[in-house]
Amino acid sequence: MASNRQIILAHRPTGPLDPTCTEVREEPVPMCGPGEALVRVGLLSIDPTIRTWMNDVRGYLPPLALGDVVRSTGAGVVVESQNPHYAVGDVVSGMTGWQQWAIADDRHRYSVLSPSWGVDLPTAMNVLGVTGLTAYFGLIEVGGVRAGDVVVVSGAAGATGSLVGQLARARGAARVIGIAGGPEKCARVVDEYGFDECLDYREEGLTARLQRSCPEGINLFFDNVGGDTLDAALATLARRARVVLCGAISQYDQAGRPRGVANTSALIVQRASMTGFLVLDYLDRAAEAQAEILGLLREGSVVHHEHLVLGLESAPEALHLVLTGGNRGKTLVVVDPTVTLG
Amino acid sequence: MASNRQIILAHRPTGPLDPTCTEVREEPVPMCGPGEALVRVGLLSIDPTIRTWMNDVRGYLPPLALGDVVRSTGAGVVVESQNPHYAVGDVVSGMTGWQQWAIADDRHRYSVLSPSWGVDLPTAMNVLGVTGLTAYFGLIEVGGVRAGDVVVVSGAAGATGSLVGQLARARGAARVIGIAGGPEKCARVVDEYGFDECLDYREEGLTARLQRSCPEGINLFFDNVGGDTLDAALATLARRARVVLCGAISQYDQAGRPRGVANTSALIVQRASMTGFLVLDYLDRAAEAQAEILGLLREGSVVHHEHLVLGLESAPEALHLVLTGGNRGKTLVVVDPTVTLG
Repeated sequence: MASNRQIILAHRPTGPLDPTCTEVREEPVPMCGPGEALVRVGLLSIDPTIRTWMNDVRGYLPPLALGDVVRSTGAGVVVESQNPHYAVGDVVSGMTGWQQWAIADDRHRYSVLSPSWGVDLPTAMNVLGVTGLTAYFGLIEVGGVRAGDVVVVSGAAGATGSLVGQLARARGAARVIGIAGGPEKCARVVDEYGFDECLDYREEGLTARLQRSCPEGINLFFDNVGGDTLDAALATLARRARVVLCGAISQYDQAGRPRGVANTSALIVQRASMTGFLVLDYLDRAAEAQAEILGLLREGSVVHHEHLVLGLESAPEALHLVLTGGNRGKTLVVVDPTVTLG
Repeated sequence: MASNRQIILAHRPTGPLDPTCTEVREEPVPMCGPGEALVRVGLLSIDPTIRTWMNDVRGYLPPLALGDVVRSTGAGVVVESQNPHYAVGDVVSGMTGWQQWAIADDRHRYSVLSPSWGVDLPTAMNVLGVTGLTAYFGLIEVGGVRAGDVVVVSGAAGATGSLVGQLARARGAARVIGIAGGPEKCARVVDEYGFDECLDYREEGLTARLQRSCPEGINLFFDNVGGDTLDAALATLARRARVVLCGAISQYDQAGRPRGVANTSALIVQRASMTGFLVLDYLDRAAEAQAEILGLLREGSVVHHEHLVLGLESAPEALHLVLTGGNRGKTLVVVDPTVTLG
């Protein structure tokens, strides 16, 4: 236990992430100083947004510097604490980074996960974690989902997208249509997550197929993908539609100017709006989302999958998997399997 | 006066409008039937949106059919009426089309212009007409302009844009920055319309210059232009910025897929929104906008210009002028100079 293994950013990727971009480093385990808690990391949440932090561009957080531990959400257990917010034994979630040990304090606030939820740690990190909050606040606060809406979700087989569709259904959406890549994913979106339909963006003519599936237009489009998928949805909006921009995974690995979207004028024709959001702005309202999602979980009306990848050193490969769509469900890296919830 | 001269759509333009697209036709003056009023057209409002109706694509109104009179807002005088809403002698404004005579009825409602405004007909058709309402409702209702905002307006030398800047100033905007084409227009935007600054989009590096002019970012972007101008603004948004899409004049004359905008992800990073609107949805609230604009007119705090083009047959050329930025202020075609207000 004398060392803290870390994954650092060694080179900035230009285009897809490759193995030379990150390196493993061993550092001493950090000391737990006044106001701090020492966290033994158990799980890392592998989110597409991590890729955006690797570029040297203005974003919602500062870009990583070369040599920085890769920024990431994770969960762990408090093993030592000089901060009254954290008790030894608490299972907590926060910005651990890709490493074995992390420090929580008042500036780097972690939330304490509740054993009373009665779920395992991977589930807590998926539907009750940042992924769940993203789906909930994006759909409900930003998108203002209403009973009777025709809701379309891109990245529908992903952790966020699959939950968005199920929450939309629970809120009374008239139809829930997914967009995903490949027949296998599309089948899962319908069969497992209960969407009415799922369109494969890899097949020709997405716009025409989407327009056939939504003859009255889309009322709410929840976008995780960007690019041509967003463009197809813009061309299919109903009057006063709401487009929620959650992510743009199709763009993250691209070098140079993205192809962009051509159909923004549809927002004028349809008096529609397109709004971006970040779950960071809603973290203090987590309990609200967790209560609703827990309720649905207990009724058995939320299906979710976690895709576990073993070992800290696998984190870069896990991120590559997420960016290329090779994952199945919420992708989590198991750093220490002994860290569990409840 | 036995005939009604009309301009009809003869061929659909592919790319820029050319003289073969329209033809002159002579028809009998329409009969004024029950529930109708016969209007002698005096002025036509030449708006960029007319170009979009010439394409055979889904829009906010059905596309023109070949042989149709070109759809257009205009003003005229009622010469005969079998409808209690319209009295002989009333000066009215509505969808006259490009012709000398038009019929108003309850389905094709015209609004009666008030001689008590104390303005001439071109002014009424500009800042108190559809142009004024567009600026007012786009800025205030859709954009929710607030005191202290940094407001950027594209198409700033145009009829709508120049008024948007002045209304933003009147509502307490901290800075009002225009974007226009060429040094002469930029000078007018500052010297005549009182913007703090105006950037020439024809010069290199609009994005970098815009970012220098708005170091804290744009709070409200009012877009008449689309394309690269919109992209530059997206790259310069402040946190929770509002983008109002009013038009996309840079796209109307283009054949094929527009180049589009690449920076939609900035909406996520900045938690910003982009909303399209059509003035059609606000026509029943015209009095509200007219009251505020009239007040400013009377204090002398609205500068406006009308660019008059003589003769119905000049309408296609006037539209071409507007689409290529050759006009100066609100472009109106004088069909009959004897029609005046008050």
